[in-house]
Amino acid sequence: MGHDMLAIGVDGGGTGTRAVLTTPDGRCLGYGVAGRGNPISAGAEGAAAAVVDAVRSATASAGRPLGDVSVIAAALAGQPASGEGAELLLALLRTAGFAGEVRFESDLLATYFSGTAAGFGYAVVSGTGACAIRVADGRIEATSDGLGWLLGDRGSGFWIGQRVAKAAIRDLDGAGRATALTGGLLYRLGIAPATTRGAGRPRALEQLVALLYGLPPIELATFAPLAFQSADDPVAAGILRRAGEHLAGSLAAVLTEPGPLVVGGGVLSRPSAVRDAFLGRLGDAAEGLDVRAVPDGAVGAGLLAVRAVGRPVTTQMLDGLTAAVAHVR
Amino acid sequence: MGHDMLAIGVDGGGTGTRAVLTTPDGRCLGYGVAGRGNPISAGAEGAAAAVVDAVRSATASAGRPLGDVSVIAAALAGQPASGEGAELLLALLRTAGFAGEVRFESDLLATYFSGTAAGFGYAVVSGTGACAIRVADGRIEATSDGLGWLLGDRGSGFWIGQRVAKAAIRDLDGAGRATALTGGLLYRLGIAPATTRGAGRPRALEQLVALLYGLPPIELATFAPLAFQSADDPVAAGILRRAGEHLAGSLAAVLTEPGPLVVGGGVLSRPSAVRDAFLGRLGDAAEGLDVRAVPDGAVGAGLLAVRAVGRPVTTQMLDGLTAAVAHVR
Repeated sequence: MGHDMLAIGVDGGGTGTRAVLTTPDGRCLGYGVAGRGNPISAGAEGAAAAVVDAVRSATASAGRPLGDVSVIAAALAGQPASGEGAELLLALLRTAGFAGEVRFESDLLATYFSGTAAGFGYAVVSGTGACAIRVADGRIEATSDGLGWLLGDRGSGFWIGQRVAKAAIRDLDGAGRATALTGGLLYRLGIAPATTRGAGRPRALEQLVALLYGLPPIELATFAPLAFQSADDPVAAGILRRAGEHLAGSLAAVLTEPGPLVVGGGVLSRPSAVRDAFLGRLGDAAEGLDVRAVPDGAVGAGLLAVRAVGRPVTTQMLDGLTAAVAHVR
Repeated sequence: MGHDMLAIGVDGGGTGTRAVLTTPDGRCLGYGVAGRGNPISAGAEGAAAAVVDAVRSATASAGRPLGDVSVIAAALAGQPASGEGAELLLALLRTAGFAGEVRFESDLLATYFSGTAAGFGYAVVSGTGACAIRVADGRIEATSDGLGWLLGDRGSGFWIGQRVAKAAIRDLDGAGRATALTGGLLYRLGIAPATTRGAGRPRALEQLVALLYGLPPIELATFAPLAFQSADDPVAAGILRRAGEHLAGSLAAVLTEPGPLVVGGGVLSRPSAVRDAFLGRLGDAAEGLDVRAVPDGAVGAGLLAVRAVGRPVTTQMLDGLTAAVAHVR
């Protein structure tokens, strides 16, 4: 491979798409962002278009043509390595002037490598969904949860948001505890907390339920911030605590020996009652884990790009990419 | 009203539609059944067609023309008293020769009157969904739950079935207890319980999750029977117990003073661990309640039909209709 050849790592999730342009030795040359990269929430076309946007933005920021890029490591949430979505992305990249190779990676692995360059360790990611992985030899060796909103994703943003909605509903229904979440949710949705009753129900309850069933179920995840904002409320605190305990349970299912633990995603990347409960439930097991929080998988996608051009990834490279990405974002 | 004028009560739910042809004094003349009457699961057209089928079958069994019927009391799950579904049903009934009036009622009230003729009391119904009501002066005065699969229906068939699926998934994922539900669910769905792993997961788990997300979510309710069949399994027993406790919680939210308590729906109409836990959780409150289990709302729909022609409903009438319907079904 020529010394001019560059690599791009793309981290695409439900909240945004990030691309890191790097030299084969892990020097960050450019950075670009675009919209949602998750093919489930954005659709296959929207997700592929977001990747191309981010890639173009990264090369433009460095003043380099896309033809200088030999490999793109695409770490995309819910993205299969083959199939229609992959073909669509390849076609769009070819049209944009990319002549190299695309390597599909898990977005979970990008989050993992955003926190460590070690070949062995763990990542727990809780965004809209939630998943725990064990990494060995730089590959995902075991996975727990990540099973979607209807059947799993315990402790995820969806899980929290659904419980916020249920808690407000049970409060209005007279079957659950009074909670600050009720007022917060009604205000957020523009529903008057009127006490008038129709058919033995508070009217606000009827309106709330009708409105919520009008949304795609996954949109319940957008109510998760209400729990964090009301963290002093006992009901909200209980939801956050149980979310953290569920995430610890998912990690426990893949935990074998000590190693670095990377935590990421909107629910776990910042200090909160969820993270406290998560670490608290891990108990003694947490002692052998070196916990690092990361905002997303951008840096790790850069490391995956370096790996894709055949170079070993190092801690020095991780530190350099982390500093460079922090500088440009 | 002429002495020849008859009334029909229709009880339409997610599992079937039942019609009772009665004289104004509550003597059962005919009985008919048809398919699903729930407009949510059967569609508005399917639900209306099922009502007409059941009505025709009931009049035919008595050898009477539909023109002899002055009132139809339609107690239909999820059926609004107005709107497209109601207009569709009226149009179909007119075409079938019905010239009288249609009174829309709650299917919950039909279940209630299948167990008591009293103006005051309670009903807890757990079928695909779950709801508790307090009845006063023969009308629903308060309602708890019945809020649908995504946000409520705690202790319902959906609730149980979803937990069956989740328990099997957590078992396969290594994050939950081993349970007999796993084998039962895989067998039911024709998935081989192979131990081969792809991407750090049992292949059976990937297959199970893909298959379940291919179903409409509400279909998870069809797995509820697996919990009853494995009632000796600790995980299944825990699900059934919590279902009963949730149903007791819904009743507690509408409970004011002693009265008859009618329990119905597939989950609660037969003796089971759910009903035991339900009564156990009610504790002392259960002492003031006269509990009666009913298979469905057919008899109560007959009483609602009698009420719709302006006659008072009596316990004698209830007993007579119960015996007659038991005889013909």
